[in-house]
This record gives sequence, C-alpha cells and structure tokens, in this order.
Amino acid sequence: MTKFDEKSLRLIFPLWQGGDNPPYYLGSKLLAWLAPEPTGPVEEVPVEPSGNVALPVENKMRGRSVLVRQTQAAQDIVQRRQPDSVVVLGGDCLVSLAPFAWLSERYGDKLGVLWIDSHPDVQNPEQYSNAHAHVLGTLMGQGDPDLTRFVSRPISPRNVMIAGIHSPLPHEAAFIARHGIRTCAPEAVREGAEPVMQWLDESCIEVLAIHFDLDVLDPAHFRSVLFARPGRGQDDFGNVAEGKLDISDVLQLIRQVASKKKVVGLTLAEHLPWDAVNLRTMLAQLPLLSHEGESS
Amino acid sequence: MTKFDEKSLRLIFPLWQGGDNPPYYLGSKLLAWLAPEPTGPVEEVPVEPSGNVALPVENKMRGRSVLVRQTQAAQDIVQRRQPDSVVVLGGDCLVSLAPFAWLSERYGDKLGVLWIDSHPDVQNPEQYSNAHAHVLGTLMGQGDPDLTRFVSRPISPRNVMIAGIHSPLPHEAAFIARHGIRTCAPEAVREGAEPVMQWLDESCIEVLAIHFDLDVLDPAHFRSVLFARPGRGQDDFGNVAEGKLDISDVLQLIRQVASKKKVVGLTLAEHLPWDAVNLRTMLAQLPLLSHEGESS
Repeated sequence: MTKFDEKSLRLIFPLWQGGDNPPYYLGSKLLAWLAPEPTGPVEEVPVEPSGNVALPVENKMRGRSVLVRQTQAAQDIVQRRQPDSVVVLGGDCLVSLAPFAWLSERYGDKLGVLWIDSHPDVQNPEQYSNAHAHVLGTLMGQGDPDLTRFVSRPISPRNVMIAGIHSPLPHEAAFIARHGIRTCAPEAVREGAEPVMQWLDESCIEVLAIHFDLDVLDPAHFRSVLFARPGRGQDDFGNVAEGKLDISDVLQLIRQVASKKKVVGLTLAEHLPWDAVNLRTMLAQLPLLSHEGESS
Repeated sequence: MTKFDEKSLRLIFPLWQGGDNPPYYLGSKLLAWLAPEPTGPVEEVPVEPSGNVALPVENKMRGRSVLVRQTQAAQDIVQRRQPDSVVVLGGDCLVSLAPFAWLSERYGDKLGVLWIDSHPDVQNPEQYSNAHAHVLGTLMGQGDPDLTRFVSRPISPRNVMIAGIHSPLPHEAAFIARHGIRTCAPEAVREGAEPVMQWLDESCIEVLAIHFDLDVLDPAHFRSVLFARPGRGQDDFGNVAEGKLDISDVLQLIRQVASKKKVVGLTLAEHLPWDAVNLRTMLAQLPLLSHEGESS
C-alpha cells in the first residue's frame, strides 16, 4: 500500500515550442503513460498544440510569447502546490525552468543541480533562437530577461554539475569556463562518475534536482531522441554533440548520487517517440480505425 | 458525432508467447493507446504476462498449451460478439488466427486475405517452433491440429495474397508454389501493387481481411520491430527477410485495396516498442517515481 504524499508533485508538461518540435507533445504524454502510478498529486500544464502555422521568432527567441505564457502556467502550479519535491515529465528541456526555480527558492544554497545532458543548455538568444538550449544558464540568472524573471533565486554555478557533456560549442565552453561550472564526460560517467561524487563531497549541497535530457543517450540504442530522427542525413545536426551513454549508465549515475543526497527534483526531457508519432498518424488513416468520412 | 456500431469489434490481444518475446505485450497496449477512439465495442483477450520461467517447447511448439488457451479465449469473444468486422491490435502474428477464422466462417468464399508481411507465416512445428510463423498456413487449414481446429472453414489459397514478401526460406517458397499462392514483392508494392489489384479483379472476393505485420517496414526508419532490436548483431536473425517498405507505402497499398473492396478485418501485429519498454523499466527505478522500498 503506497502512502499518498501531498507534497510530492508530478508535473506533466508537454512543451514543444522550446525546441520547435511538435512530437515533444506526445513524448510527454507517453512518459506519463509509462510511468509508475503516481503517489501524490498530478498536474498537467496546458500547452497549445502545434497548428499549421510556423512558430514565429520574436526578438531573437522562437515562440517567445507562448514560452513565457506556458512557463508562467507551470510556475503558477508549483507556487500553488508548494511541493517539497517535483517530477517533471517533458516536453523539451525548458520544462525544468519553473520547477527548478521553485526548488531553488525552497532549498536555497542546499540545492544542487545535476544536469545530465550532451549539451550544457547555457546559450542565449543572440547565439541560438530555440530556448530549450537556454534553460540551465537561465536558472543561474544568465540570459534573456523574459526567462530569468522566473528565477527569484539564481542557482550558484558551484552548485551545478553537467554530466554526459562532450564537444561543447566554443561559446558554450567559454561560458562553462567563465563560471567555473564542473562537468563530467560520458566516459567518466561510465567509469564511476568520480568528478560528480567529488563535487558532492566538496559542496554544501544537501538535496538534488536532476535534469535528465534523454538525448544524452546513444541514438543507436535509444531511438526516441532528436538525433535518431528517421531518415536523418548524416550532417543534419551540424557539429552538435550526440549522446554516448546507455540507460544503464545513467541509472547507475543516478543511483550513486541518490545514495549520497536526497533527490527532490527530477526532469525527463526531450523525449521524441518517432515511431509512436508515425503509428498514431497511420492508425488514424486505416480502415475500421479512421474516423475520416464517417457520418456526422 | 460518431455512430456507435455494435457489430464492429476492436480486439486488444497482447499475445507474446507466439513469438516468445514479452515486449509484444506492451506493443499491443501501446497500439491501443495510440489508436483513434473506438466507435464500437472493445474487448481485451486476457494474456498471461511473462514470468521468470522460459516458455517450454511442448511437442515441437513453444508455449503450445498457453497459445491454445489464449486463442480459445479470443475465439470465445468473437463467437459471442459475432461481429461484422474486427480490428485486432496485437501482439504477435498469431493474434489473427481466431478473428480471421471467424471472418472466414462469416463471409466464406467472399473473403479475401491480404497478408502484408516480409514473411509468409506458413511454417509448421517441424520447421520452426514459434507459432507466430504458422498462422497463415493454419488459416488455410495446413498445420498443427491444435491450431487448425480453430478454423472451421479454411480459407482457399486462391483467396490469399502476400504483399511485401521477399527472400522466403526454401520450404516457405515450396509451400507457396505448391498451393499457388499469389505474392507481391516490396518493389512491386511501391510501384502500384499491380499483382494485388489483378488478384482482386480476377477473384470472387467481396470483402477483405488485412493482416499488417509491422516487420514489413524498413527497420532503419521504423524501429519498433524485431529487426531493430537495440544492440542487435548483424547476423542475429540469420537469413530471415527484413522489412523494406515505409509506412507510406503500406498506407498507399491499403488505400488502393480499400477503394475496391470493403475491409472487414484488420490486424496490426508484431509491434515491439523497444524504447517504450526500456523507458518503462527505467522510470520504475528512478527516485521520486519508483515504488521500490516504499512503506507498505
């Protein structure tokens, strides 16, 4: 019998506009369908589905106004619920902004952020227009004012660890160096994540928020990520880093940190279930299943 | 507003034992989750989930007794419902046995069967122990008595077309030749499926049952099939044919035949959503989601 925990929130957040990729929507719903039964309240952030109109770039940020509106809706939920812990089922990486900002407000300097990702997500609109690549910078108070205004208490860079990262772009590497952010390469994650454990030992961190971007996974073994898009060309994603870890590597890392510190935040992000998206579209067109042309 | 059709049955059949592959179970449930809202009755065949014990080979057929029991349960449902049409969301290919046998009883020689598959599914237990490769032979009255007994009115080979097939095994090719079964290669499907349309023109077929084995799809573009198993070795599946079609090719084929004949049966089979299976296992082990170690 599971005890209901009123202060442990599950947030379903099918945000797709931060990555300008509508399948993130189904990705969030599918994660929610696959997850164990909730043991506390569940809320869903209302997200506008994809229409036939391209998402406009507004002052260098794609979908700026809708991103602000939906992040506000997420913040309203966490402010109303005041949870001790929160699980976020995204959606693109921007889904972590409001919930992790809340955890920073709730726990202050005791909060550490473990960002498990091939990418550092520290860009700004001058560098890249899709805001899912801005969110960790924003949580540290760096970035566009339309997003940093959701962060009442910026997270100190020394409380941040990026694991699974490799081959950052030059301006990302410069940001990481300038702020002294610690990182752990995919190979080091697999070999016991020494840099992560050292970071925890040397810090004042008591509780952890973990952001798990699924694109840290090797797309040859886990195909529901951007880099495994069916029919992609070899050079479609330029020189952006692709995932190198397996699920077992990430589970091992999370087990290690969870044995040392209490986990109070967990995001699953960037789930792009291509096959499910294509199946759903197909099923809607098949005889005996389709509602097309039915009597009204 | 959709009219409810009492005689149009949707059957969820998460059979996995016919292919000895437990992920078919989730594959069926996920298809049901992705499918459009039903417009008639929905039934689910009770299927025993996978345990820790290997499925025994019984008199040359793997899982013989459980397959018979579960096929009987499916037959009981269709016999009770007596549907005019049925959609089956599988599960391995054996899910078509009882529903298509019912359609043959219902429509007799007016029923044609379009089997969209890389493989002909005409083997017998002497040749191969997994019964998901026996089902089309069984529907024609050829095969193991424990399975053919579900077929009160065998389907005539001249009412059968296998589309998407290539590189059959020698004994499969011999069966096809011996019974004069028509086939349509993947390339011909893409080029307008002339052999399929000719088959329909020259026959007395008035209604169609379509079996769509998802492994007819190219595993490089649709990864929720056997041949896209993560980490597979190049030679893991020996000289068994792998899919060459895309979803759009199969949709086009089905559109073509549906414009000529009424579709009264449709099976989706062999859905193996590897990523969803791995995600579900992963989510059950993550902090804030796992129920492990919780107070009882």
